[in-house]
Amino acid sequence: MSDPRRSGEFDLIARLFAPLAAGEPGAFGLTDDAAVLAIPPDQRLVITTDTMVAGVHFLPDDPPDLIARKLMRVNLSDLAAMGATPMGYTLNTALPKTVDDLWMEQFAKGLKDDQERFGFTLVGGDTVAIPGPLTLTLTALGRVGTGQEIRRSGARARDILYVSGCIGDAALGLMILQKRLPGLSAEDERALICRYHLPEPRVGLGPELCGLAHAALDVSDGLIADLGHICETSGRGAVVRGGDVPLSPAARRVIASGRVSLETLITGGDDYELLFCAPPSASAALQAISRRSGVAITAIGEITDDPHIRVLDPDGAEICLNRAGYTHF
Amino acid sequence: MSDPRRSGEFDLIARLFAPLAAGEPGAFGLTDDAAVLAIPPDQRLVITTDTMVAGVHFLPDDPPDLIARKLMRVNLSDLAAMGATPMGYTLNTALPKTVDDLWMEQFAKGLKDDQERFGFTLVGGDTVAIPGPLTLTLTALGRVGTGQEIRRSGARARDILYVSGCIGDAALGLMILQKRLPGLSAEDERALICRYHLPEPRVGLGPELCGLAHAALDVSDGLIADLGHICETSGRGAVVRGGDVPLSPAARRVIASGRVSLETLITGGDDYELLFCAPPSASAALQAISRRSGVAITAIGEITDDPHIRVLDPDGAEICLNRAGYTHF
Repeated sequence: MSDPRRSGEFDLIARLFAPLAAGEPGAFGLTDDAAVLAIPPDQRLVITTDTMVAGVHFLPDDPPDLIARKLMRVNLSDLAAMGATPMGYTLNTALPKTVDDLWMEQFAKGLKDDQERFGFTLVGGDTVAIPGPLTLTLTALGRVGTGQEIRRSGARARDILYVSGCIGDAALGLMILQKRLPGLSAEDERALICRYHLPEPRVGLGPELCGLAHAALDVSDGLIADLGHICETSGRGAVVRGGDVPLSPAARRVIASGRVSLETLITGGDDYELLFCAPPSASAALQAISRRSGVAITAIGEITDDPHIRVLDPDGAEICLNRAGYTHF
Repeated sequence: MSDPRRSGEFDLIARLFAPLAAGEPGAFGLTDDAAVLAIPPDQRLVITTDTMVAGVHFLPDDPPDLIARKLMRVNLSDLAAMGATPMGYTLNTALPKTVDDLWMEQFAKGLKDDQERFGFTLVGGDTVAIPGPLTLTLTALGRVGTGQEIRRSGARARDILYVSGCIGDAALGLMILQKRLPGLSAEDERALICRYHLPEPRVGLGPELCGLAHAALDVSDGLIADLGHICETSGRGAVVRGGDVPLSPAARRVIASGRVSLETLITGGDDYELLFCAPPSASAALQAISRRSGVAITAIGEITDDPHIRVLDPDGAEICLNRAGYTHF
């Protein structure tokens, strides 16, 4: 590669990526045609993948380490939603000329930090040039006990509907970045933007739900749209108590100010919280898991035989939703 | 998606991609967060991935079905080089607005044809928009008996060096497409271009080499450059008898015309033949495998303790190589 600002493919792999693969002997230091990985005999391979494009999924001048960590975390979130434990990942980078060595070093640093945090290891990939926007693909591998994976399609009537963490922070963070929500305190701004840039994949919680949750997914399209995916594949409906949807202190202050409606938060996306349903008999076990993992789990409604999704206000009146998130199903 | 020429992501997945995943129950019809796959207990997962960008790895107006099949085949070739049997793949498509429904249908048709040919099944993926060139990532999954994978690094001195099929056709095919090799017969042109557009991954041969070959890879950078990768990772060198490198009838005619040198063919890329080495004691078994599989296997030299690569002409004199392919190592 003749661009003086960036090393060639072989050098990038040896200098930045091979150290990230040191934890997996079957990655062969990224020097072979493929990686070879062991799946424990009583477990199954879980695989998911996401592509992120500069100008579509992130801003070209977002910090490189945050881009790396978000790419990794949205995939880890998908593994968690299946009840899977992370194992390793492959990474494909299509690099425009504007990406230089410094950018790549910060990107690799982001990968390294989150690898250590989530017990995840690079096992392979590909690095190519692109006469266009930076395009990144991460394919995540996990493992789950045979027959233990949590599908979207298993919801049953009278299951209690739960969500982890809080909903809506990422949607508010994006509004702030788009200058559509001025006047917040610096602290609230920081907290909400951080939740947009850096979702918290529930990798500890997900595997704990195996054997308890009837259905699960991670909230990326928006709470109500994703609930639609569970209901559609399960042939069920749901009632959501809008007042019970967990909000962060910052989000509660925004709602209290009257400038943003609850509808915006439950139809916004990028929460990467787990939305799942479980029979009432699982509630004590779920409370114990919540205490042990330090992740809030909040009951927000229940699954119904009636194949519609209804959102109720605190007085029990139905809230009519008009936003796009709702039209997915 | 508002572009009237192309369906939205959910529709593309349901209409074109989900049918390609019908053969793998653990792909869940592409409706869940991840796929769940069983790896037989005495086998290991083999994973490899490649990204191809329009204008870099293929021409934007190349036939969509050929782009799909080449993307699949270069990954299958990597699996074969490890001795692995194909299982399934994930596919990430970053689509510019110029890609319409007709293009996507032809692309999916190419995937379907080669899936059936190679026993390969779509298990997941992601479809996004890109304000830039069509960018495709395929991640291939295979399986190999535990401890049976063939690495690049196992070459031993006095191993015989073999290559499958013929070398150099793809390099000539590219020269024809670039208008750098006029005057060939229509039949030779067609044959050589076809070998560039559509490599033949040695998926039948690769697994047969487990337990026989000490080292293997697939020739993508060029025969001599890739031999360099085997020698470098193995800490060995090699002698190649240039006159024994197998050439197709069309390539032999080009060489005989004096317009292209043997050096061009053994330093060109995109052959996707298997280059491997095995002890002399394996030669009878390899002959039987060649007969059984119908794939030519040709001895072209041997591995040496001397850590250099020497290419000899039919008189035993060393050929000096000057091309870039040679400078990789």
